[in-house]
Amino acid sequence: MMKNKVGKQTLQFSSMPRIIGAHALVGEKEGKGPMAKWFDTILEEDTYGEKTWEKSESKMLKQSLLLALQQSGLEKDQIDIILSGDLINQIMSSSYMARDLAIPFLGVYGACSTMTESMTLGSIMIDGGYAANVLVGASSHYCTAERQFRLPLEHGNHRPPSAQWTATAAGGMVLSANNKGDKAVKQGKEVKELYISHATVGKIIDTGIKDANQMGAAMAPAAVDTIIRHLTDTGRTPDFYDIILTGDLGHIGKDIAIDLLSGAGLQVSNNYDDCGVLLFDKKQDTHSGGSGCGCSACIFSGYIYKEMRLGKIKNALLISTGALLSTISSQQGESIPGIAHAVAVTTEGVS
Amino acid sequence: MMKNKVGKQTLQFSSMPRIIGAHALVGEKEGKGPMAKWFDTILEEDTYGEKTWEKSESKMLKQSLLLALQQSGLEKDQIDIILSGDLINQIMSSSYMARDLAIPFLGVYGACSTMTESMTLGSIMIDGGYAANVLVGASSHYCTAERQFRLPLEHGNHRPPSAQWTATAAGGMVLSANNKGDKAVKQGKEVKELYISHATVGKIIDTGIKDANQMGAAMAPAAVDTIIRHLTDTGRTPDFYDIILTGDLGHIGKDIAIDLLSGAGLQVSNNYDDCGVLLFDKKQDTHSGGSGCGCSACIFSGYIYKEMRLGKIKNALLISTGALLSTISSQQGESIPGIAHAVAVTTEGVS
Repeated sequence: MMKNKVGKQTLQFSSMPRIIGAHALVGEKEGKGPMAKWFDTILEEDTYGEKTWEKSESKMLKQSLLLALQQSGLEKDQIDIILSGDLINQIMSSSYMARDLAIPFLGVYGACSTMTESMTLGSIMIDGGYAANVLVGASSHYCTAERQFRLPLEHGNHRPPSAQWTATAAGGMVLSANNKGDKAVKQGKEVKELYISHATVGKIIDTGIKDANQMGAAMAPAAVDTIIRHLTDTGRTPDFYDIILTGDLGHIGKDIAIDLLSGAGLQVSNNYDDCGVLLFDKKQDTHSGGSGCGCSACIFSGYIYKEMRLGKIKNALLISTGALLSTISSQQGESIPGIAHAVAVTTEGVS
Repeated sequence: MMKNKVGKQTLQFSSMPRIIGAHALVGEKEGKGPMAKWFDTILEEDTYGEKTWEKSESKMLKQSLLLALQQSGLEKDQIDIILSGDLINQIMSSSYMARDLAIPFLGVYGACSTMTESMTLGSIMIDGGYAANVLVGASSHYCTAERQFRLPLEHGNHRPPSAQWTATAAGGMVLSANNKGDKAVKQGKEVKELYISHATVGKIIDTGIKDANQMGAAMAPAAVDTIIRHLTDTGRTPDFYDIILTGDLGHIGKDIAIDLLSGAGLQVSNNYDDCGVLLFDKKQDTHSGGSGCGCSACIFSGYIYKEMRLGKIKNALLISTGALLSTISSQQGESIPGIAHAVAVTTEGVS
């Protein structure tokens, strides 16, 4: 009955859905950081020619999906469904993107865990035979997030050292049941194929943190819970993975995650990193690092996807992490629920 | 490869996931309306003992899920996953519900189409063998929605005749791969079993309406598009269904839907209704009828579920309808993207 579930929380995709295209699109600041060479598009200016930040973000998401599609070699009418989300109230960036693309759409919300939530649901749809090709995406924009969750930019407020910097970034990927549409494979390029083998759906962990400038600390326990659950369910050890990558714990959250994993007897320091730590250089003054749905979306769609295509990374575990707070929940004194979903990607799949 | 998809947008669930439990929980006003006898819980007062409306709504959603679970006969630790959403920014009602229940959670956002989005994804997970038991839910609350989308209640603003009334309501259901946990079946009660046979995932349709007090008109074209797509994909005619039920088009939207269907050569007047029309009596002064994620959630979990259990409805098509606007999108002059997802439920399933 449960032929595709292993252990308590992990789904197994026996047909190994492929990632046949990806596009990472980032803003100016992200394009000046240490990961710049991995990004497919770097904006010259973050308005992207639009009159509002929300329209800029929606355009970023749409372009990242369309360019991932173009890279894959598929046409728009071959896509069965779009799965996407973002941080903006009522996932406005995703809704207006999906309106423009006119493809069946299911919106998701998992705060900054959205990329792996989309990838999980997309993999289920392909592996289960409900879709042949799925577009998955996630986006965030520093200016939409600051206005919505914190203060208007014009206010010029000071940020505490524990604060993270919402990435202006979008990542889009094309998941497919086979490699028939994979342009790189068809052109006979020497590329590896990427397969999604497992997904671990997380539980909410809330350790009582109420400070919205301590997101890394609020999310780290959820990330660690999902990593431990994934390893237990699959019977794997951390060294199975060439890279284990959390979404946006930032510097503080990454240190907490390493401590918690170590306390659970898991040593991950050599092959563990965090997208929020990777995205910015310390000199860029983002304090504890990057965050936002776009953070893990652009690092995976840019850096990890390309390195796996080249055969330099064989097994990757991406754990996007979400802080499920809202301005209202903070005002009402609620603590921050953390969540994390993990997706295992491998180049060692079926031939 | 696409063994479980028929036509362009319709998923087919060959293992026929069951609905083995349901609970409809509504507020005071809804409990005084024409559908009162179908609701499992009617609140004595809409705060539900909480200090904020948001906490009231989250408690309503949690209770509807827990009581659906109790009715089904399953225990909490038998649930693989929760799929849920609501209208509140960052789906706060769902996040805090899922925190309290400590079950793996995927949040969804489809505005008032959330109930059928949750049911669709839950059916995929069960039918595909990724979960044995799934909790699906959706909620809305008049007071959280008014504060967020319109004006504070204390403002006492006038509502135009085309406005709809956000239902204070939550609906929860237990989807299951089999009837092993179905208490009613185990107790030998003479009940029919409910199976989800198909789901049609909708595209966004935006006809340019910008008036947030014209939600029915904004969503009707999307509902009609999904109904036509569902019938085309499955080769069914409208009379296959004992009832075709849109989510919350209200009086104005229902009339538009009938006109549009008629224009497409489909006569549905005898077996077609709308949850927003059913929920309130004209005397209750809700103008164009009910709306909100909870509207179709409580009508289906209350009325339709019970009538199907009793064998009085054999085939039902529920089309929850969503208006994917936000306060920001309205302020920025954007029109309202409409979406609708359909779920076909039958008692004529496998034995």
